[in-house]
Amino acid sequence: MAEELQQTNIALLGFGHVGRAFMRLLQHRRTWMRREFGLEWKVTGIATLNHGMAIDPNGLPVPKILRAGKRDFSLDRYHNGPACYSTTDFIRQCGADVLFETTVFALDGEPSATYMREALRAGLHVVTANKAPVAAHFRQLTRLARQRGVRFLYEATVMDGAPVFNLVRQTLPATRIRSLHGILNSTTNYILTQMEQGASFDAALRYVQKQGIAEADPSLDIDGWDAATKLSILIQSLMGGAAKPEDIQRTGISEDTGKLVRAAVRRDRRIRLVARAYRKGGKIIGKVEPEDLEIFDPLASIRGLSNILILNTDTMRELAIVENNPSVEQTAFALFADLVTLLRRPQ
Amino acid sequence: MAEELQQTNIALLGFGHVGRAFMRLLQHRRTWMRREFGLEWKVTGIATLNHGMAIDPNGLPVPKILRAGKRDFSLDRYHNGPACYSTTDFIRQCGADVLFETTVFALDGEPSATYMREALRAGLHVVTANKAPVAAHFRQLTRLARQRGVRFLYEATVMDGAPVFNLVRQTLPATRIRSLHGILNSTTNYILTQMEQGASFDAALRYVQKQGIAEADPSLDIDGWDAATKLSILIQSLMGGAAKPEDIQRTGISEDTGKLVRAAVRRDRRIRLVARAYRKGGKIIGKVEPEDLEIFDPLASIRGLSNILILNTDTMRELAIVENNPSVEQTAFALFADLVTLLRRPQ
Repeated sequence: MAEELQQTNIALLGFGHVGRAFMRLLQHRRTWMRREFGLEWKVTGIATLNHGMAIDPNGLPVPKILRAGKRDFSLDRYHNGPACYSTTDFIRQCGADVLFETTVFALDGEPSATYMREALRAGLHVVTANKAPVAAHFRQLTRLARQRGVRFLYEATVMDGAPVFNLVRQTLPATRIRSLHGILNSTTNYILTQMEQGASFDAALRYVQKQGIAEADPSLDIDGWDAATKLSILIQSLMGGAAKPEDIQRTGISEDTGKLVRAAVRRDRRIRLVARAYRKGGKIIGKVEPEDLEIFDPLASIRGLSNILILNTDTMRELAIVENNPSVEQTAFALFADLVTLLRRPQ
Repeated sequence: MAEELQQTNIALLGFGHVGRAFMRLLQHRRTWMRREFGLEWKVTGIATLNHGMAIDPNGLPVPKILRAGKRDFSLDRYHNGPACYSTTDFIRQCGADVLFETTVFALDGEPSATYMREALRAGLHVVTANKAPVAAHFRQLTRLARQRGVRFLYEATVMDGAPVFNLVRQTLPATRIRSLHGILNSTTNYILTQMEQGASFDAALRYVQKQGIAEADPSLDIDGWDAATKLSILIQSLMGGAAKPEDIQRTGISEDTGKLVRAAVRRDRRIRLVARAYRKGGKIIGKVEPEDLEIFDPLASIRGLSNILILNTDTMRELAIVENNPSVEQTAFALFADLVTLLRRPQ
């Protein structure tokens, strides 16, 4: 009890739904963190694109910031540190041990890849929920982290909080992933399974947009880019491959897919947008495309927003993990799980 | 490279299919163990019920023992240590750091519970694939391990090598399991799904017996004891409950279940033997019984020997893990994963 508490300083880049949910989760787990790691944490910086930024070496008043309304919300008035004129300034001066990056999905991964590089170079651990920069710069970012003796973690990028990278890293030792496949995009799976029940493509899409589940630009979901980006991360992280999102053979879904879906139902089959990676001649091939599956295929039972990943391994044969109806809380949990991972094994 | 290798001594209690598969796996992972942990291992003792026992402080010739035919197989001729007149002698004198216990399923968990207690008291880590003693003496064995500063691990007891306990312990930090349910017994699931396709109860049972999948006494599977024992371990280990196998409300399957199965198929539904645990008034209730499920229930898509466990949590909502067509190699992998767990966190 009298032991001295270890102090960890946290900074956030991005403070939208995910960043806020992560802050609420971390608040609720304060006692657990103290008991498990003898650790006390504070948030020394938050930077956003549209709501200013704030640094306070003594810790920002997170509960108060969370309570503040979102209208005309600005972080600037909480600032109590050195002057910052850019995100780069922020990263250098926020005084954090760990940077949580939760900015939005842009296909080229910029500018967040640049910020993550700067943070790693400055000796910060980096945890991200941002797929595109991880897929685009996987080797560079992981190498940089290794060189600086810090961790670069990205559990939230695939299947939200369902353990994927932590599953393989921590529970499947000395295991080779021979191939993998799954349903990785919630928006298209929702649309496909709604069309099975007679809904129109547009109505189903509007619903996921209203729920805040579709990407800001829904073509990223529908054209298969989101699934291809996730598949690229899986290939690079779990299979040692090099396929970038643009190397994934990619077919999306459209209004026309509705005919396929209804025809499949009549034959007692189901259409799913399946992401697959497999080894062929020393290379790893990635594919995202609608597949026509028998009704008892495990993928056919995945409906609505749920996701599944099936790993084919040399130790465990086939192992699947399923996430049912994810929400922003699950993404926040992935950030939390990564924080715990790096506290347990800081290198 | 010049670093001194750590030495770990291993002993096996039981040397059947699982023990042998584990030895083969460990041999294949020798280089990996050296690289990952700077660790060299040897087997200093093997004890069996019907094939004698052997101790050798310099390490037994495992490849040779594995090659020896099973007919008239005896370990005694490899013995090169102090005289042993009992398993208790063996445990005290085998010189191991970790004991792997893989003896057969007996409902009361004896005598293996006694052996595991002796091993833990003697300061050995214990890894077991044996459900009954874990279910019957969970608190005592875990407490004993804690007192002696060693680990007591049992990943293999539920869903073979699919990470269940390692999943929760290592990838779901600060998470409360609200309830769980799943299909935990391969034999009954095989019989039920074969009966769906018109096979008879007896023919399906004979097949799993011939494959060596059914318990030696198949009534342990069919009457739901195997699933109840696994559910009891899940309740005690993951939910902090106290339900023993005999406290689980238990209904098995029989020849007569065939009628239910066929009637369900006609209504586009499926029968599965479902294990459930849920909280009610401060207690945790466990149930194993055939349930009539809609065809799109994730459990309905689990066919043949496959298993599924669905966790309902406060951080991740619903998360499922599925093991497809397990074999003895997967059980061996669970023992290996536990060895890695205890090497990473010896306390």
